[in-house]
Amino acid sequence: MPEVSDPKADLKPKAHRLTDEQSIARLKDFGMGLRNQIETNEPPAFNVPTRTKSNIYFNERDLMLELGKKKSSRRFMNVAHLRKFMQSTVVAAACQEYMKQSRTVAKRELYYNLKWTLPGTHENVFEDDTESGQVLDDLECSLDILREQLHVNAKGRGSIYGDIDLKQLGDEFSCKGLGRGGWLIPGNVEDVEVLNCNADYILAIENDAMFSRLIEEKAWKRLGCLLVTGEGMFPRGVRRFIKILQEKKNLPVIVFNDGDPWGWYIYSVLKYGSIELAHLSNRYAVPKSKFVGMTMDDIDTYGLQKVTEKLKDIDRKKIREEMEYPWFKHSPEWMKQLKLMSEKGVRLEQQALASKSLQFVAEKYLPEKIEKQDFLP
Amino acid sequence: MPEVSDPKADLKPKAHRLTDEQSIARLKDFGMGLRNQIETNEPPAFNVPTRTKSNIYFNERDLMLELGKKKSSRRFMNVAHLRKFMQSTVVAAACQEYMKQSRTVAKRELYYNLKWTLPGTHENVFEDDTESGQVLDDLECSLDILREQLHVNAKGRGSIYGDIDLKQLGDEFSCKGLGRGGWLIPGNVEDVEVLNCNADYILAIENDAMFSRLIEEKAWKRLGCLLVTGEGMFPRGVRRFIKILQEKKNLPVIVFNDGDPWGWYIYSVLKYGSIELAHLSNRYAVPKSKFVGMTMDDIDTYGLQKVTEKLKDIDRKKIREEMEYPWFKHSPEWMKQLKLMSEKGVRLEQQALASKSLQFVAEKYLPEKIEKQDFLP
Repeated sequence: MPEVSDPKADLKPKAHRLTDEQSIARLKDFGMGLRNQIETNEPPAFNVPTRTKSNIYFNERDLMLELGKKKSSRRFMNVAHLRKFMQSTVVAAACQEYMKQSRTVAKRELYYNLKWTLPGTHENVFEDDTESGQVLDDLECSLDILREQLHVNAKGRGSIYGDIDLKQLGDEFSCKGLGRGGWLIPGNVEDVEVLNCNADYILAIENDAMFSRLIEEKAWKRLGCLLVTGEGMFPRGVRRFIKILQEKKNLPVIVFNDGDPWGWYIYSVLKYGSIELAHLSNRYAVPKSKFVGMTMDDIDTYGLQKVTEKLKDIDRKKIREEMEYPWFKHSPEWMKQLKLMSEKGVRLEQQALASKSLQFVAEKYLPEKIEKQDFLP
Repeated sequence: MPEVSDPKADLKPKAHRLTDEQSIARLKDFGMGLRNQIETNEPPAFNVPTRTKSNIYFNERDLMLELGKKKSSRRFMNVAHLRKFMQSTVVAAACQEYMKQSRTVAKRELYYNLKWTLPGTHENVFEDDTESGQVLDDLECSLDILREQLHVNAKGRGSIYGDIDLKQLGDEFSCKGLGRGGWLIPGNVEDVEVLNCNADYILAIENDAMFSRLIEEKAWKRLGCLLVTGEGMFPRGVRRFIKILQEKKNLPVIVFNDGDPWGWYIYSVLKYGSIELAHLSNRYAVPKSKFVGMTMDDIDTYGLQKVTEKLKDIDRKKIREEMEYPWFKHSPEWMKQLKLMSEKGVRLEQQALASKSLQFVAEKYLPEKIEKQDFLP
């Protein structure tokens, strides 16, 4: 079992899971706040933290992207705000109803479900789903509650395989013994309970073909880990699931991605959060994550010179951008890797390890690097 | 249980599953053929059916896209063919080795696994994975064997939920009782065995959010069906899995897609095959499929006038194209639908049903249409 220790681990925020009762209470507070304003003849209004780049900063202590203190308000008495104000109350009411019914919806379903004409007017609640999406983002941010906790699901994508038993919707099931497949990680994991977990860490894998390779090689057993893939960029549901598992079971997270600016970026989003979801980093970011590969050093260490791919212009552009990101810029190890990639002019995919042998990744590469804790921070 | 009868059902080709022994035998025949040519001083060559549009036709009897009789040859003594000839033998040998090892590979893994320099030359077996992909397509076509049967996996995507027990890689597992998730349909289902199946039909669903809705509503139980989604266009693995289930258990396939030219096209690919994979239609196409919705008639029947979306130019272009596809052109029902869509100028998404209520699709729309067999052919 690898020891991936982090001196700041205890300072990190927790996953902030909420029961439906707690979520409903927040919605009620929101509604009561508006009602109190009306009853005291105040013009109803509520605040929404600003999510533009100027209000996003990198918190060096907690190691995550966060919002600053800027807020804007949605005022009922402002004609420019009125429509959004109305939409926010409609969505909040609908979400409360979904929770009471123990139902969840997709974003697109929410849109259609609320696409009606306001009684006595010609005004539709929503004209398109961009409108409903924005209101949902606002509510998430101003009520400090996840969209999924409001029962609006993210996209189900990615999967998990390994020795863990879960419970959801009253079903109890294992994520091992599933042939070549795995359990599809649904777009809402807020109600997942972990019953048993017999694993030392989570191995988060960029490429789903590598995930299949590691199932076939029974690597989850050999390495004692849970295999999780997001099929490329780890989607919201997968990041949330990893965060919950990591905190519930205190599991280290080791990330295994392509050795290119995109694989490294995907890692950084898992670890520090993303600009788009900076208001949710404390629910998504896993600052304890470590990166096992692919690195530029792997090329010489494992004799992979013949299976690199040439960098394209778009790769070089992304490298230059990443060298300016604070989380890379302040890390000598990552700056060394980015410079090396630039100098060598090549990228290295996970699957390039197949040039050694199909089993090489499971029998040599991963066990060796994880045993030695040969990680990037 | 719906009776989806098809008078021609018994004439349809079977799923053509092969054991590894049978697949190895085909590869051996291929190799022995070349060896015999060499031993009898014939210049080695093999034939590959032509896969260009000029050799693809719609078989009206069997209701599927198929290749004609045109073939081209790959000749060892032709400089223009030599490289592909060499690559074909390398891939065939590698696939045989994978089968012996009971391993499978992704396309990209195959490429890296075979990216070596020929001994005594400066010639790489492959320069990029387009080369290895083409050779694989050729082998699949000339040996009449699926890539997956050669142990080269498609992408794992899509999932299944319902009362069916499967066996793969020695694991026995159920596809129900999996919370909000499902079993991720892997990129190779050739070795899936069906242990028990307690369902009357397969409901193939375009949109994975609708799949989630139907899990949440326990529609698989209420309707007695297996829920399968491909997350948009049904990918290779999902189509193959549906084909195998349909033939093994003689299950009708009912398709539930968006009411737009894309959803209808996705249905037609599942039913008749695709131009890209016309050489494999007998392994993928499910001519017995029926289409339950969304249709243009649903707009009036279910009062969905307010939740249609306007057609875009690209939708109109696709409608015009589809009116020329023989499988739509010769179907009065489909031509009526395409014309209606054109006239109304709107499309209708599956999730528009949420405007009635979240449970409407599971409690009213699907049970009613399936009971009445209100299908498009």
